[in-house]
Amino acid sequence: MGNSFGKLFKLTTFGESHGKALGAIVEGCPAGLELDESKIRLEMQRRKPGQSKITTQRKEEDEIEILSGVFEGKTTGTPIGIVIQNADQKSKDYSHIADKFRPSHADYTYFEKYGIRDYRGGGRSSARETAARVAGGAIAKQFLEAKGISMQAFVSQVGDLSLEKNYTELNLSLAEENIVRCPDPEMAEKMISLIDQVRLERDTIGGVVTCVIKNTPPGLGEPVFDRLHAELGKAMLSINAVKGFEYGSGFDGVKMRGSQHNDTFFKEGEKVHTLTNHSGGIQGGISNGEDIYFRVAFKPVATIMQDQESLNEAGETVTVSGKGRHDPCVVPRAVPIVEAMAALVIADYLLLAKSNKLQEI
Amino acid sequence: MGNSFGKLFKLTTFGESHGKALGAIVEGCPAGLELDESKIRLEMQRRKPGQSKITTQRKEEDEIEILSGVFEGKTTGTPIGIVIQNADQKSKDYSHIADKFRPSHADYTYFEKYGIRDYRGGGRSSARETAARVAGGAIAKQFLEAKGISMQAFVSQVGDLSLEKNYTELNLSLAEENIVRCPDPEMAEKMISLIDQVRLERDTIGGVVTCVIKNTPPGLGEPVFDRLHAELGKAMLSINAVKGFEYGSGFDGVKMRGSQHNDTFFKEGEKVHTLTNHSGGIQGGISNGEDIYFRVAFKPVATIMQDQESLNEAGETVTVSGKGRHDPCVVPRAVPIVEAMAALVIADYLLLAKSNKLQEI
Amino acid sequence: MGNSFGKLFKLTTFGESHGKALGAIVEGCPAGLELDESKIRLEMQRRKPGQSKITTQRKEEDEIEILSGVFEGKTTGTPIGIVIQNADQKSKDYSHIADKFRPSHADYTYFEKYGIRDYRGGGRSSARETAARVAGGAIAKQFLEAKGISMQAFVSQVGDLSLEKNYTELNLSLAEENIVRCPDPEMAEKMISLIDQVRLERDTIGGVVTCVIKNTPPGLGEPVFDRLHAELGKAMLSINAVKGFEYGSGFDGVKMRGSQHNDTFFKEGEKVHTLTNHSGGIQGGISNGEDIYFRVAFKPVATIMQDQESLNEAGETVTVSGKGRHDPCVVPRAVPIVEAMAALVIADYLLLAKSNKLQEI
Amino acid sequence: MGNSFGKLFKLTTFGESHGKALGAIVEGCPAGLELDESKIRLEMQRRKPGQSKITTQRKEEDEIEILSGVFEGKTTGTPIGIVIQNADQKSKDYSHIADKFRPSHADYTYFEKYGIRDYRGGGRSSARETAARVAGGAIAKQFLEAKGISMQAFVSQVGDLSLEKNYTELNLSLAEENIVRCPDPEMAEKMISLIDQVRLERDTIGGVVTCVIKNTPPGLGEPVFDRLHAELGKAMLSINAVKGFEYGSGFDGVKMRGSQHNDTFFKEGEKVHTLTNHSGGIQGGISNGEDIYFRVAFKPVATIMQDQESLNEAGETVTVSGKGRHDPCVVPRAVPIVEAMAALVIADYLLLAKSNKLQEI
Repeated sequence: MGNSFGKLFKLTTFGESHGKALGAIVEGCPAGLELDESKIRLEMQRRKPGQSKITTQRKEEDEIEILSGVFEGKTTGTPIGIVIQNADQKSKDYSHIADKFRPSHADYTYFEKYGIRDYRGGGRSSARETAARVAGGAIAKQFLEAKGISMQAFVSQVGDLSLEKNYTELNLSLAEENIVRCPDPEMAEKMISLIDQVRLERDTIGGVVTCVIKNTPPGLGEPVFDRLHAELGKAMLSINAVKGFEYGSGFDGVKMRGSQHNDTFFKEGEKVHTLTNHSGGIQGGISNGEDIYFRVAFKPVATIMQDQESLNEAGETVTVSGKGRHDPCVVPRAVPIVEAMAALVIADYLLLAKSNKLQEI
Repeated sequence: MGNSFGKLFKLTTFGESHGKALGAIVEGCPAGLELDESKIRLEMQRRKPGQSKITTQRKEEDEIEILSGVFEGKTTGTPIGIVIQNADQKSKDYSHIADKFRPSHADYTYFEKYGIRDYRGGGRSSARETAARVAGGAIAKQFLEAKGISMQAFVSQVGDLSLEKNYTELNLSLAEENIVRCPDPEMAEKMISLIDQVRLERDTIGGVVTCVIKNTPPGLGEPVFDRLHAELGKAMLSINAVKGFEYGSGFDGVKMRGSQHNDTFFKEGEKVHTLTNHSGGIQGGISNGEDIYFRVAFKPVATIMQDQESLNEAGETVTVSGKGRHDPCVVPRAVPIVEAMAALVIADYLLLAKSNKLQEI
Repeated sequence: MGNSFGKLFKLTTFGESHGKALGAIVEGCPAGLELDESKIRLEMQRRKPGQSKITTQRKEEDEIEILSGVFEGKTTGTPIGIVIQNADQKSKDYSHIADKFRPSHADYTYFEKYGIRDYRGGGRSSARETAARVAGGAIAKQFLEAKGISMQAFVSQVGDLSLEKNYTELNLSLAEENIVRCPDPEMAEKMISLIDQVRLERDTIGGVVTCVIKNTPPGLGEPVFDRLHAELGKAMLSINAVKGFEYGSGFDGVKMRGSQHNDTFFKEGEKVHTLTNHSGGIQGGISNGEDIYFRVAFKPVATIMQDQESLNEAGETVTVSGKGRHDPCVVPRAVPIVEAMAALVIADYLLLAKSNKLQEI
Repeated sequence: MGNSFGKLFKLTTFGESHGKALGAIVEGCPAGLELDESKIRLEMQRRKPGQSKITTQRKEEDEIEILSGVFEGKTTGTPIGIVIQNADQKSKDYSHIADKFRPSHADYTYFEKYGIRDYRGGGRSSARETAARVAGGAIAKQFLEAKGISMQAFVSQVGDLSLEKNYTELNLSLAEENIVRCPDPEMAEKMISLIDQVRLERDTIGGVVTCVIKNTPPGLGEPVFDRLHAELGKAMLSINAVKGFEYGSGFDGVKMRGSQHNDTFFKEGEKVHTLTNHSGGIQGGISNGEDIYFRVAFKPVATIMQDQESLNEAGETVTVSGKGRHDPCVVPRAVPIVEAMAALVIADYLLLAKSNKLQEI
C-alpha cells in the first residue's frame, strides 16, 4: 500500500536508496503523446545532487532507461516502465549506523512497522525515492503541455528569509537563473549566503516552495473527499521533509473577513474570471480556471554533520555522528519534485473530468 | 469518484443539502464492536447548527437512523448504513440564487464540471455533507476507543486572536466548556466577542482548529505516497472551507535549524520516547508513538449577509443578496468534523498495519 | 472491502436480509441523464419474489426511494442514494436456525470470518442483497440506453433441459413472455414443468442464464488484469449461487482447432465485423464491436424444504428443517440481476475508455 | 488502469513482448519473509517457451533481476521490483504484420482503443506478459508456503481428451513428470500425441487447467462483490486465451438437485469438514477450509502456421501468413501461470482477513 499515486494517470515507484535501482511506472498516460526523453533528463538534472555548492556533493548520475510503453517515440497507452540505476552508491559507509536510530529520521518507525529495515541511507524512506517521482512527473508535464497547462515552482522562503511579494509581482522565469531557485535575484543572494553559512555550521535549515499552475480548465476536481486541493495537499505532504501545505489565502486567510476574502466574478470576453484570487483557483474543490497556487513547508532535514545522542535497536543510548556529505537545505532541489507531484495530480484530474457530462460521452 | 474515504476502514457519503436525506456508509469496521448510538448522537449534537448564539440559527435535527451492519448491538463486519433525513429544509428560500454564481462558493465550478447543479443551498457542495462524516467518524472513534486511542480537537485561533501556548500547556478538557471550543477560558471570551461582532456586521471570519491524537501505537503509516500525515492532510483539506494544514512544527519549523528541530530519542521503562516532538508524532510518514498533532486553517465562509456583485449562468452581472441565517465563524462547529476525519484516518491505518510483519499473519 | 463494484461508474450496496433496509449508492453516473424511475421499478418487479408460481412465494414490495443525486428529473453527477425498505420481514421465523449452520449456506463461513453473524435469513449473505444491485444496474442501463447499448439475458438451461440453439437463432424478445424467461416457448413449458415438479419434491434445481450485449463500441476493456471479460466474469461470479462463467466459445471452444476458432475480419460499409464470433465480442480483453455474449451457471440453491443433518455453533450435530417458502429454481429471477451486473460493467468501461487517446482529451 | 492485481498483496506488471524488458512489482508482501530466488527461477522455467517438443521453440531465457524490496535475503515490506530482460527478440520478424489485424488477436481492438499499437509480437497483449505474473506469483507462493498453504495446477483436458477422474482420485505429484503436465500418465501420452499431431498440421488446440488449493484457513473472502471465487475467476479470466472458469460443481452442478448438491457438515476432532465438496471450498464467497478447486478453459491460441484472410489498418483485405514458431497448445505452459494467479489471490485475501474481528486487532 502507498507506492502508487493517482487514479487514472498513476505513478508507482519502487526502490531503495542503496538497492540496485529505482523504478517508476506511469499508467494511464494517453496514447499518441510524443515523448521527449531529453525533457525527462532535464527534470532529473534539476533534482539531482551535486548540482551546486549549496546542495549535497553526493554524485548520482540519475540516468533513466525507458523499458516499455513507448513505441516509435510515442506513448502507446500501456504502462511506461522506467528504471534508474543506483550506480555509485557506497554501502560500506552505512555500517556505523546499521543498528542506530538517527534522530528524526524514519529508522525507528520503519523498524517498528516492519521489524526489519534496510538501514543503508534510509532505504525506502530516503528522499532518493523522489528521483522516480521526477521521472514520472516529467511525463505528466509533457502530457499537460500538450493540453496547454504549465506549472512553475520556486523557492519563496529559506529560514526566516521570506519573499514578501506575491507571485504575480515576480518574474518567475528568473527562478532557474540562480542556484537557490528564487525568482528575486537580490533575495536569492541572501538565501544562498544563509544556506552556505548553515552548511559551514554543519547544520541544516528549512524553507518554503511556492508553486503556480497556469491554464487549468475549469471543472477539475472530485467532490467531496477528493477535492482538487486535498489531492494536491496529499501529493505535497507525501514528499520527504514536508510539514505543511496551504493554497490560495492559506493560513493568512484565517484573519480575513468573508467580505474581503470572497473573489468577485467578472467576465472578460467569453471567459469568466475573478477580481482577486484568494480561492487559489479552486472553489468547492474544483478548479475555476484561475491560477492555482500553493505553498509547501519543508523542515530542516534531519541529517546534520554533528554528534547526536540517540538509541540503538537494543534500546541502548548511543552517539550518532554526522559523516560524509549533507544537504544543508533541500528546497532548491525540491522545486522540481513539487512540480512533478503537481503535474501528476492535474494530469489525473484532467482524465477524471472526461466522464462528467452525459453529452460528452 | 471522491465520495469515499479510506482503504480498509472506509466511509462513503451521499446526499445534498436540500435533498431528501444524507447517508453515510461505513465499511470495514471490525466485527464485534459494541456500538453506542448515543455517542454518535452526541457527536451529531456537537456539529449541528443552532447550538449557540455564535453559530447559524438554522434548525437541523440531524437524527441518525442505522439501517444495517449492527446486530444485537454489535457490529457484524458488514457495511453500516446510516441515513440522516433533511427534515426541515425550505427549498423555496433558494429561488433568488437559482441561476446566480455566489462569490467563492462552488456554484460556478459545479456548473462548469457537470453542466447542471442542485442550486438549493449549495447541493452536494454544502457543508451539510459533513453531518454524514461526523456520523461515520463517531463509529471510527468508538473503534479507536476500544483500542485505547483518543483524539481531541479545539479552536486555537479566530481571526487574529491566536492561542500562544502549546497544547501541552493547556487543559484541553476545558474546550467543550464554552461555545467557541477554546480550552483557554479567557481567550474563549475574546473569541466569542469577536465572532459576535462579526455576526452583527453581517460578515464572517476564519479560524484554526488544532487536533491532538493520543496513544497511537508506533508503526502506523504507509510509505511512500500514503504517509500518515499526507492522509491526515488530505482528510482535513477535504473539509469545507479548509485552506491549509500543518503538523508538528509546521510552517514555523521552516525557520529552525536541523540541530534544534531533531527530536532526541530516549527510553522510559520499555517505551521509546522523544524529548521534543517537532515531528508531531510522525517520522518518515509513520507514527512513532508520541502525540500526533496538527493545525487546520479555515477561511471565513463565503455566505455573508451583504450584497455582492457576481455573474449568473447567462454571464450577466447580477447582485447576490445575503438572506436568512448565516454562520459568522465555522470553527466551533468544525471541531467535531476534524475529529471525525482524524478518527477515520487512524482507524484505517490501524487496520492497514495488521499485515506488515510475516510473524503476525 | 467488497461492497463496491466499478471504478468510475460504481455501485456500493449495504444492508442485510432482515435489517431495516437495503441501500444502493451509484457513483459516477454522468450528469444530465433523464432518469426514469418507472424503469427502475420495472427491473425491481422482474427480480422480486412471488411473481409466479415457480418462484418463492415470499412477499417483498421492493419499493425504491431515491434520496440524492437527482434534481428536477436529471442526474447531477453526485452519488445517487437509493433505499429499499425491508417492509414485511418476519424475524421470528429464524430462531430455529439461530445457532445452526445450514448446509451449503454462508452461515459457517461468516461465523468463521467475523465471529458473529446476523442469522436472520442469511443476513448480508442473502440473495436479497441483489435487489440493491438491480436498482443500481437499472440506472446503468438507462445510461447505456442513452448511448445506444442494450443487453438482454434469458434462461438457457434448467437442470438438464438445455436450449440447443445459438442465441442468434432465437427471438429473444419472447423471453419475457413466459415465467421462466426462456425465449423458446416450447422449451419454456418443459422448464416450467420441471421446476414445478422439483418444487413439489421440496427440492431445488440449477440453471444457466445467457446474456447478450449489443452495440458496444469497439475499444472497451482495460489490459491486462482488467480485461473486459474478466470484469464481466467477476461481476457474474459475485452473484449468489453462481458456479461458473464462460464467454464466446467458452468451455466448448477448448475442443476446437485454432483454424476453426479464429474469427475472420471483414468490412461492411465503414464498419469492421467478423464472420464468426467465437471471440464473444472481446479480443485481448477489449471489445471489438460484435455482440458480447456469455453464460452463467447457477447451482441449485441451498434452501430446501427437507430435513438435513448439520452442526451448530457449539459443534454439535443438529437437524436443520426446511420451513416457510423456498425458491425451487432461481434462474428466472436471476435474469435481471445478470443484466444489472452486465450493465454496470459496460457503463464503467465506457467511462474508462474516455481517456485512452491524447487527441480525445 | 488494469496493470495491477490485488488490494493489499498487489502485483503490477509492465512491458511489451518486444520492448526492452518486462517488469513485476510486488507490493504488500509481509516483511521478514526469507525469499528463495531459486524458487522464483524454477517457476520461470516451468513457464518458459522451448521447454519441450510440444511447446513453442522460441528461446527466452527469462532471467529475473530483483531490484528492490529484499535486504540480506529477506523481504522488507517495501515493493519488490523485478525486471526480466527481453534478450533474444527479433523485431524484424514482425514487419510482415505491421499494419495487419491478425484474426482473433488483439491487434484490431488495441488499434481501436489506443489509435496506435506496438505490433511486434502483439506488444502488451502478448502472453509474454505472463512471465511477470509468474515471477510475482512465485513470491506469493513462498509467502503462502510459510503459512502452510499450497496449490497445484495440472492439465485435465486437451481438445476432447478429458480426464474423467476427480482430482481426489489422482496422484497430482505425477503432473510435473511429463511434458503436458497431466497427472494421469496414460492420458498424458494421448494428449502429447494429439498436440504433436496438431503441431504438424500447423494448427492449435485448446485445453483445460484444473487447480487445487490446499489448507486455506476458513474465513477468507470479501462479501459481496469481492467473493473469493469471483476474484479467483477474474484472476483466471485475465490470463491470455482463457474463455471460461468454474469452481466446485461448476457448470455440471446446474443439473443437480439441492438435496444432492448441499455439502453436509461434520466434525473431525476440532475441525469442521464437509462430507462432499460441491462447494469447492467456498461458501457465500468465503473459504470454509476444504480444498478449493476450479477449472479454467483455454481456447486454441490464435497464432497458426497457415494463411488466413484478414484486414489491414486501411481496411483492405490482406493475407496473414503464419511464420516462425508457434505454440500448438498453451495449457502445459499455462499451469504455472494459473498457480501464480491463484497464489496472488489467496495471499491477498489472507492479508485482508487480518482485520475482520475486533479482538484480533
